[in-house]
Amino acid sequence: MAQIEWVGFDGDDTLWKSEDYYRAAEAAFEQIVGHYIDLSDRRTLAHLLAVERRNLRIFGYGAKGMMLSMIESAIELTGERISARHVQEIIAIGRATLDHPVELIEGIVAAVQAIAADHRIVLITKGDLFHQEAKIVQSGLSDLFHRIEVVSEKDAPTYQRVLRELDVAPGRFAMIGNSLRSDIAPVVGLGGWGIHMPYHLTWAHEAEHDLAEDTPRLLQVDAAWALPQALARIEATVAEP
Amino acid sequence: MAQIEWVGFDGDDTLWKSEDYYRAAEAAFEQIVGHYIDLSDRRTLAHLLAVERRNLRIFGYGAKGMMLSMIESAIELTGERISARHVQEIIAIGRATLDHPVELIEGIVAAVQAIAADHRIVLITKGDLFHQEAKIVQSGLSDLFHRIEVVSEKDAPTYQRVLRELDVAPGRFAMIGNSLRSDIAPVVGLGGWGIHMPYHLTWAHEAEHDLAEDTPRLLQVDAAWALPQALARIEATVAEP
Repeated sequence: MAQIEWVGFDGDDTLWKSEDYYRAAEAAFEQIVGHYIDLSDRRTLAHLLAVERRNLRIFGYGAKGMMLSMIESAIELTGERISARHVQEIIAIGRATLDHPVELIEGIVAAVQAIAADHRIVLITKGDLFHQEAKIVQSGLSDLFHRIEVVSEKDAPTYQRVLRELDVAPGRFAMIGNSLRSDIAPVVGLGGWGIHMPYHLTWAHEAEHDLAEDTPRLLQVDAAWALPQALARIEATVAEP
Repeated sequence: MAQIEWVGFDGDDTLWKSEDYYRAAEAAFEQIVGHYIDLSDRRTLAHLLAVERRNLRIFGYGAKGMMLSMIESAIELTGERISARHVQEIIAIGRATLDHPVELIEGIVAAVQAIAADHRIVLITKGDLFHQEAKIVQSGLSDLFHRIEVVSEKDAPTYQRVLRELDVAPGRFAMIGNSLRSDIAPVVGLGGWGIHMPYHLTWAHEAEHDLAEDTPRLLQVDAAWALPQALARIEATVAEP
């Protein structure tokens, strides 16, 4: 019998590629703004990040908020000179971010199937409800999950609520994800287990965390194929008397 | 013992005012577009509605999608003449729609409390996850609900999923809401009960439904104070042998 009762999986950049599309959107945004201002001082994306952070409180995460922040940022950066046609192009960038086909992370289907064979698994994904649901459906993975939670923020109170609804003690829960800030730190902080699977890209906002290097109950894997083994190591540790 | 095991409440225009803010936003939008085109043919809001519907598939419901559709619609209506400053004003309109204080519907707190006294109650609300969560918190009603579901669409499959998760048969479930299309028709269609509490404003998209006038298991009330009585009538009907 498994010691870990529920295993959580993050969505973006854990099950499917996401940050690549946001980076491509940012590059396209920079190019549009470059019609009006000198890009050599590299302040365009720094300004966009500042506007996105300022707007998080009211827009939340996701591509629609990004589109609106890009439009605001472009208006500010160009001193209100940006044309309607270029605003339309920014909307087209966001639309492409929302509408790309879902590309699964290499090896993730086999890993999810292997873990689902002897654990209950929950998808805990953050962002825009409509976009996340569309990606979940397109991923073809939704039937493997016993439960799916789309949340607006991945912090300790959110994980506390989800674990309460799953009726599982933190010590019997492991979370798999690419973000130390959103997937690992709050779960480990509650007494749960984390398996960190870094992605090759990380949004600046997600890169910030206050996790120590010698954090207990935290494992790291390089790729999806190593996830079942990492979970088995956690099982063995929990089973120790 | 109650015959109806779970009672669902809609959020927007059932617990708190919503459509008023969208109407105000539309009026402000029309005024901005009026700087560029003749408004007398009244096509501005018709065009906006068409753009919103075209975008529903990719943006989903909610104020952020409305903002993006307004910007697109304004660019199209003005033949790409709209200025960056006016685009900024459209974003400000949407921001106000997202950020207004929550105004509860008259009498709803007492009605929710009365019904919660002998039923389990669930809030089933549609739209942007982040915005809905903010309104739920601000409403002060969240502790009264045994469960809260923010969904991206209110159709038969969604209600089937929620009822399955609540482990309740449709005949033991009643839904209270202002939208025949989203709150009543799918629930009654599944065999559940509906209590329709019309709001003085209805978005054109929500006004469309195919519910017959003599639909069974459907009651209508004029105001929130009448909700507990309507539910009592349903209880009496279900209890009949």
